[in-house]
Order: sequence, then structure tokens, then C-alpha cells
Amino acid sequence: MGKQPKTAITPTRAEDYPQWYQQVIKSADLAEVSPVRGCMVIKPWGWSIWENMQGVLDRMFKDTGHVNAYFPLFIPMSFLEKEAEHVEGFAKECAVVTHHRLEPGPDGGLVPAGPLEEPLIVRPTSETIIGSMYAKWVQSYRDLPIKINQWANVVRWEMRTRMFLRTTEFLWQEGHTCHATEEEALEETRLMLDVYADFAENTMAMPVIKGEKTADERFPGAVSTLTIEAMMQDRKALQAGTSHFLGQNFSRAQDITYQDQAGELQHAWTTSWGVSTRLVGALIMTHSDDDGLVIPPKLAPSHVVILPIYKNDEQRSVVLEYCDQLQKQLKEQTYEGEPIRVIMDDRDIRGGEKKWYHIKRGVPIRVEVGPRDIENGNVFMSRRDTGESNGVSRDEFVTQVGTILTEIQSSLFDQALKLREDNSRTIDTLDEFREYFTPEDKDALEIHGGFASSHFCEDAPEVQKVLGELKVTTRCIPLDQQQEPGTCIFSGKPSTGRAVFGKSY
Amino acid sequence: MGKQPKTAITPTRAEDYPQWYQQVIKSADLAEVSPVRGCMVIKPWGWSIWENMQGVLDRMFKDTGHVNAYFPLFIPMSFLEKEAEHVEGFAKECAVVTHHRLEPGPDGGLVPAGPLEEPLIVRPTSETIIGSMYAKWVQSYRDLPIKINQWANVVRWEMRTRMFLRTTEFLWQEGHTCHATEEEALEETRLMLDVYADFAENTMAMPVIKGEKTADERFPGAVSTLTIEAMMQDRKALQAGTSHFLGQNFSRAQDITYQDQAGELQHAWTTSWGVSTRLVGALIMTHSDDDGLVIPPKLAPSHVVILPIYKNDEQRSVVLEYCDQLQKQLKEQTYEGEPIRVIMDDRDIRGGEKKWYHIKRGVPIRVEVGPRDIENGNVFMSRRDTGESNGVSRDEFVTQVGTILTEIQSSLFDQALKLREDNSRTIDTLDEFREYFTPEDKDALEIHGGFASSHFCEDAPEVQKVLGELKVTTRCIPLDQQQEPGTCIFSGKPSTGRAVFGKSY
Repeated sequence: MGKQPKTAITPTRAEDYPQWYQQVIKSADLAEVSPVRGCMVIKPWGWSIWENMQGVLDRMFKDTGHVNAYFPLFIPMSFLEKEAEHVEGFAKECAVVTHHRLEPGPDGGLVPAGPLEEPLIVRPTSETIIGSMYAKWVQSYRDLPIKINQWANVVRWEMRTRMFLRTTEFLWQEGHTCHATEEEALEETRLMLDVYADFAENTMAMPVIKGEKTADERFPGAVSTLTIEAMMQDRKALQAGTSHFLGQNFSRAQDITYQDQAGELQHAWTTSWGVSTRLVGALIMTHSDDDGLVIPPKLAPSHVVILPIYKNDEQRSVVLEYCDQLQKQLKEQTYEGEPIRVIMDDRDIRGGEKKWYHIKRGVPIRVEVGPRDIENGNVFMSRRDTGESNGVSRDEFVTQVGTILTEIQSSLFDQALKLREDNSRTIDTLDEFREYFTPEDKDALEIHGGFASSHFCEDAPEVQKVLGELKVTTRCIPLDQQQEPGTCIFSGKPSTGRAVFGKSY
Repeated sequence: MGKQPKTAITPTRAEDYPQWYQQVIKSADLAEVSPVRGCMVIKPWGWSIWENMQGVLDRMFKDTGHVNAYFPLFIPMSFLEKEAEHVEGFAKECAVVTHHRLEPGPDGGLVPAGPLEEPLIVRPTSETIIGSMYAKWVQSYRDLPIKINQWANVVRWEMRTRMFLRTTEFLWQEGHTCHATEEEALEETRLMLDVYADFAENTMAMPVIKGEKTADERFPGAVSTLTIEAMMQDRKALQAGTSHFLGQNFSRAQDITYQDQAGELQHAWTTSWGVSTRLVGALIMTHSDDDGLVIPPKLAPSHVVILPIYKNDEQRSVVLEYCDQLQKQLKEQTYEGEPIRVIMDDRDIRGGEKKWYHIKRGVPIRVEVGPRDIENGNVFMSRRDTGESNGVSRDEFVTQVGTILTEIQSSLFDQALKLREDNSRTIDTLDEFREYFTPEDKDALEIHGGFASSHFCEDAPEVQKVLGELKVTTRCIPLDQQQEPGTCIFSGKPSTGRAVFGKSY
């Protein structure tokens, strides 16, 4: 152990990945458990990342013709019951409001009072409440399409929670659209999957596989569910966003009908799609390292942190003035069309402590400035992603800062893509599949294998049996793969195509 | 009746103000009642106004040193009980979660199941849950101040609801700060009141009186509550934002302590402050007229709408091309440092219907363009606020559009200020006070009077008696008034100063 380089995070990824994840969150001050079971507090640094995600996504939604609105937090219990699969999917994990006040109880404490005639469910998702409004708004084909998104909190009473990845309350956006034709609704479902994939790859620097879920992994009530799947650094899969084609299931359950151009009454076709604060968890697990958080520049609350270094008051005033000037110059530079976000940390704490503070929080570029640097017209620059440090001329750094951020962003994507490629395999026999997903050393990493692309037969019972044994799941049937004939490696039956398999969050 | 000019909204403000308000909301498509008791759906046009409010406020909060974060939706019942006045204030109107799933009941329908050990309250406000985190985060004076804001939904089980003004669920921001000294917390309370007043007057074009609430109108648990009070067009007062100095009440109840520089353990001093979607209601009631919504340019989702006018296909292509060009030119102009927001409405509906659609939605400037205008290089411009219309040269309009928007913004403020000044009176006798607030004709307007500034004695029981009879409330003790001796007009006792009185929402 003594020979290993010291890391800021203990344990390391290799030692204990789930624990490493918690420690990255803690040391970057992103979030914290709350006194409310399964709910977390998102702290300012974590919130800024989510806020940046929201900003980019919101712009993408508006550019694809969507508008925002807001629907109630509560759903009458009877609404949930209208779509059979939907209620089946959510009834087991929902917060139920049964009373509307508190009053003093027999032992002096408070007790719930004012029972409601009909219990209200805290929304786990809003298809039913939004659908009930669409049923009122849609009369004629002229009222279609409706393309609305909402930013909201939702609650699913999860028994096993993990910060950002699975919490009882989480924040998300949910798009709900309503169309005159099946074709148009299918196009929308696919368009929003593309928006999510674009966001994941180009903003989060996280490569994803676009695919369709198998029946058992579908959204309750959907005809089909499209997904983007990412590989985390422990080689597990994470479902990062889904886009559902709901067919006429919800419009039939809720009576969303319109008169078409010929005067005939038709049921509308609906879609829904969402991403959540889970993406912050995905971001952490995709890029961070054994020194803590790494944030791609496009989502970083601060791009550059300036760290003034001095030993006495005389040096202090010279260094701070130089740093002030540098900060101004940097703010005049742009990255992605917007001013560079620069902070200066002139707190009176030890230099080492201060440096590690920003390493653990993942600021993409650190710039240290001491009296010697000033004499030489230099700054000492460090990249968070590579750890690379070097003294460069101040002028050069100022003019190059946007370019360096661009490099960091693309280098993070390349690194994540390489991890996925190195850990993806085409597998054509059950033996190889079993071996791939069975840890050699049970005491070592919990995970073995990565993504396997294999022929399977969706209806064959053998598939679920083997997957269950190995704790592997069908991630998706990729959208962009070539159709080829084959044999299901689980059942020996004719294949319905290849799917991607993996252990998952 | 036949002689009155036709208005787009029926009834008019003079005929039935509360009903006029509902009709303005409906005809501008801002919001709608939902199937959930007391909850509303905020529709896209209404949401855009709130989104614009959020954008400006969020910038103001950040500029004054605050950061955003997010705390849980649920509050354990025992947390609420810790501060006696606080629970007294909210226990009677809160949504209580008692179960965490649904299961089939005896008659086949669903029933709540999985009872919680401790009921959870859907947050009516977050002092207690946020305070419980601050108690963990604060150890030393070095950890202070904490200046956090959150954008969130809250629930108060109101018995009588009115769209935007009072709804069971509403959206707001709540700032919660924690300080080492009383002085600093008082400064923060006052600073945020100033931020709200600045926002109300300079962004919403709504003049407000800054003042302190009397004891009976204070936030439950606060030492003092500062408020901004606005006058609506029916001369009723609307509390538009509040900033609370909580003293050490919550830090004692929740044990938020820190070690000061001398090593002594001290209780922290806290504040909280909030504004909500109620501001959208205030905006509507301040500026709208008998033709519908009027939006000040700084908050308008669209500044300008272009309405192409043509009679046949040949004209159509010429007019649309001209309008396209005009739209591009306008978007290159700026208002308040940002590009002018322009929409073009080329829907195939009748010109009159289209024009009234945008009047009712309150777009500040309408521009009609027909073949004749194009020949003359003109556009036909109308201002929503004054109704003023005239043909102007296209070039002049393009270069002047920012200036016109600035004029509209300030003219709306002036008009609202004039209304308040015309309906505010200094009153020094009880007879005059009674007469001022008593309708001459009971069948006419519900409201009589406006704001009265009168001497009163806060502790005298006579005050509440008269106010109760007249259905008048103490709005606030203005912060900027001169101290002067006087006699309480209600009790004849020595006055503690003048307060502003009015009927209120």
C-alpha cells in the first residue's frame, strides 16, 4: 500500500467503487443525506451543475418547438387507476396524502386530521394529470400537436436509495406531447431521444448507446421505450434518459379525442420523455477520478480558479492585484459563446489545502500565481482532467483559455468512449457470456465484464433465467445496428436481433 | 349599455372586478383550474411570465451574494413542532403524507397502505427542514454567513383559493440565511426587502410601499416581518413579498450554534424571505385593462408581434417575405441589453380575430403589415398600453423599437403610481376613516377607499374592533416615514406612529 501514490479520495475506484462514489460527492460538497428517508439535500456546488444542465436542455427543448408549463404536484388516486399497467407500475412506491391538517392528539403531540374524501398521490410521473388536461384542450385536429415540458419534483418511494442515482424525491423534466397521427408521435419519440443523446455526448461528454427497451424494461403503460445507456467506470450500465411512445394507451384511458379533417372522432397519440438529477450521478461516475470530481467544462460552475500565492503582506497586495487583472482579462474571453466563468480564491488558508479543495470539486483549470510568476509574466496552470501542470506566459494563457477548455471537453469524451470500447464485446456463445459476467475473484471488484452484444430471442424464458443468475440485464436493442440473422445464445431459437447486455444501476 | 365601447373582456373592471380578473386569465390563456382541489395548471403563456420573473430575480439574488440549493419536499411532523408559533401557524393547513403505497382494497379499488411511522408534511415553507441542515453545517463563526435560496413548490391547504393569488400548491423562492450577529441578519432582512422593492418597481412596473408588519400579521415564528405592499386597480392592497428577521427563534428551536472568535458557543441569527407565483396575479391586476392582459416589456414573453395582412396568394408571398425581413431586423435590435423578442403570427385565421388574440395576451407592440404599407415602406404600429396606433416608416420603427419599449415600461409604472397616489389619503379622524372605507352604494363596487395613513396604537384593542367591522387590515408601518407624535384615531391613546390601512387580498 505504501508504494501507491496518495489520492485525495479513499477508498479509490479500484478498492471500492460504490464507496468511492459517496466520497467524491462528499468531498466535492455536492449533496448530503437529509433527515427525510431517501431524500437528499442538493448543496450549492451540486445544484450549479444541475442548473447548468437545465439551462442547456431547456434551450434544446425550445429549439425543437416545445414550451414549458406547470401541472399540479398531486394526482387524485382515481386518475392513476385509469391505465392498468401504469398503476401496476407505480402503486407500490408512492407517497399518499390522506389528511389536510394536524391537530393536538390525546398525548399532546400532533396527529393528522381532516381526512380527504379521496387520497392524493404525490406525482411519481404526470401522464395521468397532464392527460386529463389534454382531454379538455384537444377538440379538433387544429389543436394538435401539443408539445409541453415541465421542470418538476417527483416522488417514488424507493426502498434502496443512492445519492443522485435513486432518491425518493428527485428533480426532473418531463415532456408530454399529443399528436394527430402515429407517425408524428413516433417521430417525436425519436427526436427527443436524439436530443438526449446529443446532450449526453456533446454537453456531458458521456458517450451513449441509443436503443429500444425490451418489453420487461418498458415504462408502465408505454408501447415502446427508447433509452440512452451509458457505461460507468465500474463498467456497469446506467440508463440516462428515456423517451416513450405511448401509442393510444393513455388517450384511450383518459379520453383524449379529436375530430379529424373528415369530421371523424379519433384518439390522439401521445409521448412522454424525461431526464433527471440522476444525470448528475452519471456525470460523477463517468469522469471523476481518485482525486475527486471532474466536471466537463460545458457544465462546470467555474471554468477557472485563480489561486494567489504569497508569504507576506507586501507580496499579498502585489499578487492580489495581478490576479484581479488576470481575472478581468479571462472574463473577457469566451468559451462556447459565453464569458469564461472565473473565480478567485483568496481565502486565508494554507496553499495545499486550497489547491486540493478545488481539485476535489473538479474545477477544469487551476491557475496558481506567486511573486516569481509575476516577475516572469507567467502563470502556473494545471488541468484537472490530465493533472498536467506547467508554467506558461500569462498572455498566451489568456488567449488560449477557450481552446484549452475545448480540448478538455473533447478529451473527457474520448477517454469515456475508450473505456466503453475497451469493455464492450460481441459474444456468440453462452459459455463466453457466462464467463464474461462472472468475477474471477469474488473478493475483488463486484463487477466483471462490461457490455456484451449478443443474439437473443425476446420471448424465450431461458433468457431471463440466465440473466437472473448472472445479475445481468438487457440494456437495449441498439437502434443503429445492422439487421443480421442469428441464433439466441440462451435458448438456441432463432434470434430476434442482438441486444446489449450488462450489469446495471 | 349600447353606448359603451365594446371591450374584449366581459365583465369590465368597473362591473365586476373579481370576475374580470378570472376572465383576463382565461382570455390570455395564462392558467386554468385543475381537477385537484385548489391547484391550478400554469399554461405556457403564464409560465413564460413566471420564467422571466425567475430569471431577473435569480440574477439579483446571485448579485447580492446568494447561491441556490435544494432541500426535501417533505418535513417530518416532529420538525414542525419544534417552534411553537410556527406550528400554530401552519398545522391547520398542511397536506399530510401518511402512507407510502397503494394496494387493492376490499371492494377492488385501491386503498392507502404501508403506514409511515411518522407522518410527513408537504412543506408549507422550509425553515425547519433547512434549519436542521444548518445546525449540522454550522460549527464555527468561520462557517457563517450561509446565504442560500431555493426555487420550489410549497403546499398550504387554503380553503378559499383564487388563481395565482392563493392556491393550495404554489411556486416560489425561499431564501434562508444564517448569520453570526443580529446586526448582520437585520441588514440581510432589509437588503432582501430592497431587492424585492427594486424588482417590483423596476421590472414589474408596480409601485410598492416598503414597511413592517404589525404583530398580528407577522410570519409565524418571526421577530419581525418586512413587506412590500402594492395597490391593485380595485384599490385593494396586495402583499407582494416578505422578508423575515427570525432572530434566534429558529436557531434556538433547532440548535443552530457556533463557536465565536472568543471560543464561546452562540446561537446563530437567521432570516427568510420569499416571493411566489402570486406576483403573476399582482402583475395582472396592476396593469391589465378591459381588453385583457397588459404586460410590462421587461417581463413580456414577446415584445413585438408581427401580423401579416394579405388578401390572396400573390400578396401573401410578398407580405410574408417583407415580414420575415422585418423580424430579422428587429431581432438585431436590443432592449435592456438583450435581443428584442419578436414573434410573427402567420396563422391562417381572420385578421380581426388574430389582432384581438394578441391584445388579450398583452403583447406590448403589435405591427400590422399589408401591401399598402410595403409600397410606402411603412408598418402600422399599435401600443398595447395606450391603444395608440399609427403608420410609421419601417426604418424609423426598427431603430426606435427599444426606445418605445422603454417608454411603455415607464408609462405603465407612472400610471400605476398615479392610481395609488389618487387613492391614498392621510386620515386623522375615526369618522373620516369609517366613511373612507364604507361603500356609498352597497350594490356598486365591493371596495371603497384605498390606502389610509393614520395614527394608531398597536396594542389598543379598539383598533382591531374597528378594522374588523370595516373589513380593513393594517398593511404595514412604512419604513421611510418621518416619526411624528400623534393620537391613535381608534383609541385616543398616544400613537406609536402611522400605519397604512386598506382592504386587502
